[in-house]
This record gives sequence, C-alpha cells and structure tokens, in this order.
Amino acid sequence: MNNPDLDKLQLLPDTELELRLARLRDLMSAADIDAVLISSNSNIYYLTGRIFCGYIFIPLAGSPVYAVRRPSILKGDGIEHIRKIEDLPSRLGSGFSSLGLEMADTSYLNVCRFRKAFGDRIRYENASGIMTQARSVKTGFELEKIRFSGIKHTSLYERIPHIYRQGMSDIDLQIEIERAARHEGCLGLFRINGDDMELFMGNILVGDNADCPSPYDFAMGGAGLDPSLPVGADGSLIRPGKSIMVDVNGNFTGYMTDMTRCFAQMENLPQRALEAHQTSIDICDTLADMGRPGVEARTLYEKALAMARDSGFESEFMGHRQQAGFVGHGLGIEINELPVIAPRSKSVLQAGNVIALEPKFVIPGVGAVGIENTYIVKTDGPMECVTNAPKQIIYFE
Amino acid sequence: MNNPDLDKLQLLPDTELELRLARLRDLMSAADIDAVLISSNSNIYYLTGRIFCGYIFIPLAGSPVYAVRRPSILKGDGIEHIRKIEDLPSRLGSGFSSLGLEMADTSYLNVCRFRKAFGDRIRYENASGIMTQARSVKTGFELEKIRFSGIKHTSLYERIPHIYRQGMSDIDLQIEIERAARHEGCLGLFRINGDDMELFMGNILVGDNADCPSPYDFAMGGAGLDPSLPVGADGSLIRPGKSIMVDVNGNFTGYMTDMTRCFAQMENLPQRALEAHQTSIDICDTLADMGRPGVEARTLYEKALAMARDSGFESEFMGHRQQAGFVGHGLGIEINELPVIAPRSKSVLQAGNVIALEPKFVIPGVGAVGIENTYIVKTDGPMECVTNAPKQIIYFE
Repeated sequence: MNNPDLDKLQLLPDTELELRLARLRDLMSAADIDAVLISSNSNIYYLTGRIFCGYIFIPLAGSPVYAVRRPSILKGDGIEHIRKIEDLPSRLGSGFSSLGLEMADTSYLNVCRFRKAFGDRIRYENASGIMTQARSVKTGFELEKIRFSGIKHTSLYERIPHIYRQGMSDIDLQIEIERAARHEGCLGLFRINGDDMELFMGNILVGDNADCPSPYDFAMGGAGLDPSLPVGADGSLIRPGKSIMVDVNGNFTGYMTDMTRCFAQMENLPQRALEAHQTSIDICDTLADMGRPGVEARTLYEKALAMARDSGFESEFMGHRQQAGFVGHGLGIEINELPVIAPRSKSVLQAGNVIALEPKFVIPGVGAVGIENTYIVKTDGPMECVTNAPKQIIYFE
Repeated sequence: MNNPDLDKLQLLPDTELELRLARLRDLMSAADIDAVLISSNSNIYYLTGRIFCGYIFIPLAGSPVYAVRRPSILKGDGIEHIRKIEDLPSRLGSGFSSLGLEMADTSYLNVCRFRKAFGDRIRYENASGIMTQARSVKTGFELEKIRFSGIKHTSLYERIPHIYRQGMSDIDLQIEIERAARHEGCLGLFRINGDDMELFMGNILVGDNADCPSPYDFAMGGAGLDPSLPVGADGSLIRPGKSIMVDVNGNFTGYMTDMTRCFAQMENLPQRALEAHQTSIDICDTLADMGRPGVEARTLYEKALAMARDSGFESEFMGHRQQAGFVGHGLGIEINELPVIAPRSKSVLQAGNVIALEPKFVIPGVGAVGIENTYIVKTDGPMECVTNAPKQIIYFE
C-alpha cells in the first residue's frame, strides 16, 4: 500500500480546514442555520480531502463531528463510528435548533429519514446552496490542485497528434486518448452534479455527429455508441474536411480542469469553420480579460453571444440543431459548479472562482469547432488560464 | 451518424413494452398506486430502451406519456415536449388520485417540486421499490442483452493473459484492460444505484492492497490512487506470490454482466490461497445448482458462509480487515439490483432474476482470490452462467 495516510480521516492541513470552515460558517450564519449535516461524496471530499461513507456534522461553534460508517479503520479527532442514520442524534448533542441538509443532493427518502431521526423540534433548511456557494470560491490550496490538473491535462493534449493513426474512427481515437490520460495520472471518474448527467471520460465529436442533440445538458452532444448512453463518439470515421473536437476529462487530483481543442486530418477545414474557430479563441481571450471580481456572470455570456453574432455565427453558437444555454461554468470537485456563465445567471465573479469557458460552434457539414479553457478569477488583472495547449486547430498527418 | 433511430423515442418493440408495462401495473395495483411518474435515467432506459431528459407518466389504464425536455428531436406516440416540472400537470390529465414518485432516486427538492406542481389532492407514494421489483425479473429480450454482454465480457477476460507485460503495476494492467474492453465495445460508464457509490471501470487488486478497506459497499476494497477515489488499484507492482484479482465492467449493451477472475505471475500462489480459490469455485457451483425459483436468497448466503467456514476460511470470507455483508447481488441496467444475496435479504428467487455471485477471500500476504460469475435463474434446472471464462487462476508468463 503506497499511501501513508490510509487510516487518517482528516487529510486537509489545519489551516486549510479552518479556512473552509470559516467560509462555510459565514454562509450558515447569513442563512440562520445552526449546524449542517453533510453526506454527499463531493462535500465530504471538500471538508476532509478524502471520501468516506458517513456524515459530517458542522456546528456554527465547536468542532466538526465525523460520523463514519465505512471504513472502520479511520482515525482522528472528532470521529464517531456509527452504523446508520438513526445513530446520529445521540452522537451530535442538542446544541442546535436548525439543521441544514443537502436537500438538492440527497434522496427524498434519506432526507425524511434524517428528519425523523432528529425529530420535530428542529427546523430543517436546505444546505446544498450554501455548500455550492462555499465551494465556488477556491482556496490557494485548491487552486494548486487545479493548476496541477491543468499541467497534466495540457501535457495529455499535446500528445494527441502523436496518438492519432490514419483510419481511426472517433471512438478509436477516444480509446487511445483515454489510455494516454490514464497513464498521465487521470483518475478516470469525474463528478457531475445532478442525477441525470452522465458521461464517460469525455466527448470526442467528428463531423456531423456534433450536430446530434443529446439529452444531457453539456455544451455539445453527439449520438454516442448506444441509446443507453446517447452522447459523444458514434463510430464516425475521421476524414479530411471534418473537424475533430476533443473535450476529455482533466481529473488528475480530485479537482478538475476542463479543456477542448480541435483537430483535423491533413487539409484545411472550410473557411467558415476556421473563422468560427478564431471567433471562439477571440471570445475566450476577451472574456478572460473581462473576468474580474465584481463582474456579473451574465455580462460575460452577453459579450460572447454578441461576438458570435457580430461574426455571423449566432445560429451555430453553442450548437446548431440544439443550442446550449450557457457559454461557461464553474468547476472544481465537480464539473458543473458555480458560477454559471449564462443569460439568467445571478452570479457575480469573485477572486478564486474557477471557470471553464467553452464558446463552441457547430458548422453543418464540418462539425464542431472552438476551444475551451479553464480560468482562475484573480484579485487583479485578467483571469489566469490553466489549460495551455495550443489554441489553433492542429492538423493530423 | 450511424444510428437510424436517433429521433425515435420508444426503442422497445411493442410486445416488449407491453410486457414491462403489464408487470409494472401489477405491482402498481398491488400497492394501490394509480399512476407513476418516472425520472431516473435507469428507469427511463428500462421503459423506452433509451435515455432522454424528462419524465414518463404511466397510468394504470391508458397509454404512457413521455414528457421530453431534451432532445427536442424525439418523435413518437405519446410525446409531450415540456420545459420544466411545472409544465407536467396540464399535460397528464387528472385521472389519478395517487401518484408514485421515485423517492429513493430523486432529490428531496425535486420530489417537493413534483408535489407542489400536482398539489395536495394527490396521495404520493414511493415508486422506487416497485420499479426495482419490476426490473429484478428480466424479460427474454433483456436476457439476450445480458448474454451478449457476457460473451463480450468473456472474450475480454480471455485476452488478459496476452495483455500482461512483465514489470506492470496494477494500474498499468488496468489501463490496458480498460483499453481492450473499450475496443471490445464496452460503453465505459456503468450505472450504480445509490448516491455514494463510485467506481471507474472496475477494480484490479494486487497483493495486500486487497486488504485495504474502502468506503464503498463493494465486495472488495483497495486503496485507490488518490483519497478522492479510495478504491481499487493503488500502484502496487505485480510480483510473484501475489494474487491479481480482476473485476472489470461488463457493460456492452446497457445491460451488464459482472465477472471476476484471478491471475498471478509465474509461480504457484501459496497453498492456502489456492484452497480458498477452489472454495470460491465450489461455492459458485453449489449456489448455481441451488438457485431456483422459490429459493430464499438468504439460504444461498448461508450456504456460501457455511462452505467458507467448513473450508477454514470464515475470517477471510468477503474480506479480511473489512468484510462485505453479502455474497451476491442482482444486476442488469445497474450493477446493484435485486435480489441481494445476504443474511437478512427478504428476496425469494424468481425465474428471470440475474445474479452475480462473488464468494471471494482475502488471504493476508497474498491478496484476493476467488471468482465471480453472472447467472440467470431458470424456470427449471440450475442457474445459467453467462460469464464463461476459465475459472482457475491463470499464471502470466
């Protein structure tokens, strides 16, 4: 076993934990919540640096309690080993009259079970939004993990031209990229918020498959290989004149980066596709410069849409037969966090936000073009790009 | 685009749909539920043969209504295009006074939203259990998909000795198996029921890493590569005298098989590990013969435990430092369906159940040994094994 901390529950440095707890408690105070009880894997990871099966109880004042169901080997301050939800109340004391539960992330039956266990004297509130808010502003510790994922992710993308072989289909290329990603240290799984979102490793779209609408709320679609997972590569052969859009998973640390680049085989893509691709680069550069603390997320979307319109690509912006309703999204532990860069977004950018911008276009007859980068909102100056593979379309030989 | 049915919503043959609806309606009648409203991807796939974003309304009498949010291209009888939950009531009529919702699979907030949309005049019931029951008895159509996955899965496992190269770590081997699986047609993603269950592609355990307890409720654990996903391969080098347990994803059709085989490098494993492995094979063979309609699931567990005890392996059965509380589980669209083969299981076997049996042992100093197969419960005779790779430990050269 290679990991020295296998039985240590709390893997965050003390100062880091204090920083995250302080942020969370500010939000709890503002929402008049005395304590929260966390059970989702993403939030357990946020509060400990590891996954365990159980619950974390965080009171406004006092130390967290880590109620562990599995594995029983975990050790550290504040651990209570329990078997089930009903064991919780006796371990958590009674110094709270309101309790926040992750109502957007927990099943109806489990929330009912929590409420029954703690009884009617407690006022129950939704804590999902508080956790999402807390996580949307990354600490320096988190940003280092994101930068590291970005370096690995970039290294992977720089290998793609060398991975391609003539005669490959989209899925052939995807399989080899998946393998290279795993060898680079990609953990494979990445977390998506929302019960109905599903994707395996990433999305590679060749030619008109990019124009196939998908049930999932991603920027791009694709028919997929099977109606049980209708998204992404569908077996299309890579051919001259068709774009190859590669948008694969950058989860190298538990914190993700998101990056898209375009490739093509041999000859130049049609002029209209090249122009759309350049528009995407221009939008990214413009938004990266605009993205500063205090800027409303929706103004970034409006700028992107205006630039797409001014370039004559409004009807191809974020899809053609089906258009996605956003141009970017926060990310970190999950691929879809706050802020969302969309017309009705209420988010205002803060230093420490991490945002993927993905102004993409689907050009009928050619396929998807455009790029996606992951950016950090800085206290001063433009956003910092952490996914630094070349932005231009790369031609396979 | 390779799929001719991209815009067709209902992909099940009429007779197949009728069969599934009839089974579901019998369970609805027994539970006094007038209609169910389905929203989880697994159950949408069960009722249509595809994934879409939206809801399926199934009344006791009358035709299903498919309320589609995305993609808008879908066509067919009974489709209503909607934007949000609140659009549902006006599209579904008023001929029901009780409504089943998937309360174990839907977030608390979304169930509250459904209840608010349909109002107080309706009695709300949990439909998750009904759907799980319906899905636990597979139709002939489903069994064909499972048999096909079993054939592909077996073919993959037969390639593993040829994939191995000297000097590989567990993760090196896993990456090459993942690649071979994908080339064989594996869809990659597989569905797990329960919010806190996570795994990427499968679990490969070398030596003592098998004895590392995991937070997840799988048969075996493993430290994993990172505390953000603490399960499976941890970078252990493959060495003589250490077992290599391979338990990877058999999702080739939307319906899965589950299979585990053991390998080792060159020389024989220690005698005690070989005996435990043979005990696992014996347990599988015995349970396959016992598993007939009317048999209680718990008696299969009791028999497996008794055989492990009689062979002197009780303290290594289903783990050593942490022992799993089951020896088998139903599977199909999800990896963990009914029946569960566990001491307190209330399930009674029915023809058409599909069950993975995985009597495994962790031998300290050696690692995990044992096998796992997927079986179909038949009307007459012993269970049919659909994962037919050789059961013996295979030695890499």
